[in-house]
Amino acid sequence: MDENVQGNTGDVVAGSAKAPVTASRPPSGPFEGLLAIDLTHVLNGPFGTTILTDLGARTIKVEAPGHGDDTRTYGPYVGDRSLYFSFVNRGKESIVLNLKDENDRGVFLEMVKRADILCENYRPGVMDRLGFSYETLSALNPRLIYASSSGFGHTGPLAHYPAYDTIVQAMSGMMEATGFPDGPPTRVGGTSLSDLCGGTFMFCGIASALYARERTGKGAHVDVSMFDGTFAFLQHALMTWSATGAAGPRIGNRHPSMAPFDVYRTRDSHIVICCGNNHLFGALCHTLGIEALTADPRFLDNSDRMDNLDALKEAIEGALKQNDAAFWLDALEKAGVPVGPMLNVAEAAALPQTAARNMVIDAGGLKMPGNPVKISGYDDPLTRPGAPRLDEHGAALRVEFAPGQPS
Amino acid sequence: MDENVQGNTGDVVAGSAKAPVTASRPPSGPFEGLLAIDLTHVLNGPFGTTILTDLGARTIKVEAPGHGDDTRTYGPYVGDRSLYFSFVNRGKESIVLNLKDENDRGVFLEMVKRADILCENYRPGVMDRLGFSYETLSALNPRLIYASSSGFGHTGPLAHYPAYDTIVQAMSGMMEATGFPDGPPTRVGGTSLSDLCGGTFMFCGIASALYARERTGKGAHVDVSMFDGTFAFLQHALMTWSATGAAGPRIGNRHPSMAPFDVYRTRDSHIVICCGNNHLFGALCHTLGIEALTADPRFLDNSDRMDNLDALKEAIEGALKQNDAAFWLDALEKAGVPVGPMLNVAEAAALPQTAARNMVIDAGGLKMPGNPVKISGYDDPLTRPGAPRLDEHGAALRVEFAPGQPS
Repeated sequence: MDENVQGNTGDVVAGSAKAPVTASRPPSGPFEGLLAIDLTHVLNGPFGTTILTDLGARTIKVEAPGHGDDTRTYGPYVGDRSLYFSFVNRGKESIVLNLKDENDRGVFLEMVKRADILCENYRPGVMDRLGFSYETLSALNPRLIYASSSGFGHTGPLAHYPAYDTIVQAMSGMMEATGFPDGPPTRVGGTSLSDLCGGTFMFCGIASALYARERTGKGAHVDVSMFDGTFAFLQHALMTWSATGAAGPRIGNRHPSMAPFDVYRTRDSHIVICCGNNHLFGALCHTLGIEALTADPRFLDNSDRMDNLDALKEAIEGALKQNDAAFWLDALEKAGVPVGPMLNVAEAAALPQTAARNMVIDAGGLKMPGNPVKISGYDDPLTRPGAPRLDEHGAALRVEFAPGQPS
Repeated sequence: MDENVQGNTGDVVAGSAKAPVTASRPPSGPFEGLLAIDLTHVLNGPFGTTILTDLGARTIKVEAPGHGDDTRTYGPYVGDRSLYFSFVNRGKESIVLNLKDENDRGVFLEMVKRADILCENYRPGVMDRLGFSYETLSALNPRLIYASSSGFGHTGPLAHYPAYDTIVQAMSGMMEATGFPDGPPTRVGGTSLSDLCGGTFMFCGIASALYARERTGKGAHVDVSMFDGTFAFLQHALMTWSATGAAGPRIGNRHPSMAPFDVYRTRDSHIVICCGNNHLFGALCHTLGIEALTADPRFLDNSDRMDNLDALKEAIEGALKQNDAAFWLDALEKAGVPVGPMLNVAEAAALPQTAARNMVIDAGGLKMPGNPVKISGYDDPLTRPGAPRLDEHGAALRVEFAPGQPS
């Protein structure tokens, strides 16, 4: 605080443990000064390049003539702005280029020569047919990190298989593992999980390759997929398969090996209770006024409770239905029992914790999730630039990246 | 291939576009040569440090006296080895240290002095009470990347709130958004999604801070949380909230704005069909032998179909139930309609694509998911070292990191 009051002089204090200050504003992120050319569209790639942008990279989104990224036409809208597009393109610049037109290819290749990163999420083969394979572009710029995020990856028999999020969730086993034993396979809701796994791991590959480039002087090709990322995110389900060779049943909301550890109904809404040992189970029963359960042979130890899950849930919900969630959350928290409310996204967004962590931001006047990668020494602003209008920066970028100009 | 046949001489070929070869084996990953001290336990931190390890870092897992990481006692088991522990600790070294014992603290601090990365996922405050705050350790080693992954983050009113995966899934809105309109909120199944979001974004922060350190010479504190990561992973659900201020209803497996784009029942199992436009809808109806639907005023355009979802699904499933999934998948794929089978994790693991991408590996004799971050120039082996036995490397590490030794 004192430093802020005293103002920032730009001087480096000899011997100080603090990072040297060399400009009048703090760096915007660890990737400040890097140039990313973003050919990605729809969701998986743009999610990954948004992390890059949030962490300081300059990201130029190259869009196709016509309506640009398809998601500009996807709802929901605020005014004439697509939230789908805006959520994963904030802070980027936009230029429309026809990659089959010679003049536009010249601008694109000039960008490539000066870029640190190129990202694309076309189906495998499309970049090659455009003449923009990794081999071609890395010959122009050997330091280029060329990142591909596709549905199933650039190798293997499914490389060209169509890959919508729902298809990848279904084929990875994620959907079959989600839901209740007496219900159908269930898609992860409220988001396109497989897209985000692809985009996030693409970012992981880019950041890793950037670090390596500092030592090797060379770029690399990052090849990640929605399928690989989703599969790597499966844990318990794959443990069961690894142990037995087969998939286990869907288990609803409960924990695979601990009880009571589930979602429970109170008088007005659901809450979550997580008791991993006998001590917590005792505290739960005491708070609910059902101490007799702790002496019931069906519930003595965790293994007994796992053998009698239905009876356990019935006894707990029988007590919980006497009062509302707010009452029980308060009482159980005071008793030291791990609990939590079931919140919808509007309630989650309104948590003071969400505000304290800058996890709802304003980008161009639209509310959206903030940057989850918090690193000391960098801004984590509550207000960020919004997503660009189509070709908003096209004219300026065509000047800046005119072929043959000195870099 | 030729290079392999000719043998690796270690020479750098002048003018070659290939990366210089300076050792007799390829580097194991972009982080080869980096030392990570891993105080994390259970799931979120260990998942993040496993990505680091897969990408070449040397990772020393510091475990508490007694049984070490709790997950060593969690099933499922193969023999006496916990798959839970093994999945997220492969390739690491293990040393048992009592961080309240003076001698052991000496070994730990010697490690810290020489480390590039320290990771921890204790509840906020625990490291401070041990005397190992970021401020203290970064004074010993200003280049240290100190990464914290917690339930809700190191700031804000919920910083100390207990954070099991189920609690975070419930409080983030993820669980409330998953499931069917007539069913309960549904936990993402088969995995602990919020743990993995925390661990993956911790890795993102570490990789980013490592890159920045190459330019600043300074480490940083990475502070990520399971909650922030899960919230950032919500897309459609938060778009609805951003547009309207309220959460939307659960929508089951269907797409929020396109139809037919859902899970459908055939005679023997479920398949996924994704038709984003009238052309694909026509191809679907033709293949199913229900061309009349394309002229039905309820189904003319996507908006019509969205207004008549139940009737549409009934018509499609009426046709699909005449044959098995395998028949329809083949017929629809030939017709160019995006489709996919509903696979369980055993079937997903057995896909030729999964093998082609090295996404099932053998680590210490146990099958588990591979590394989704594929970067050219580095190995992506099918066989990796397994997880360590408790204190397996303790004796050697106590010699290597004896306090006061030259580094």
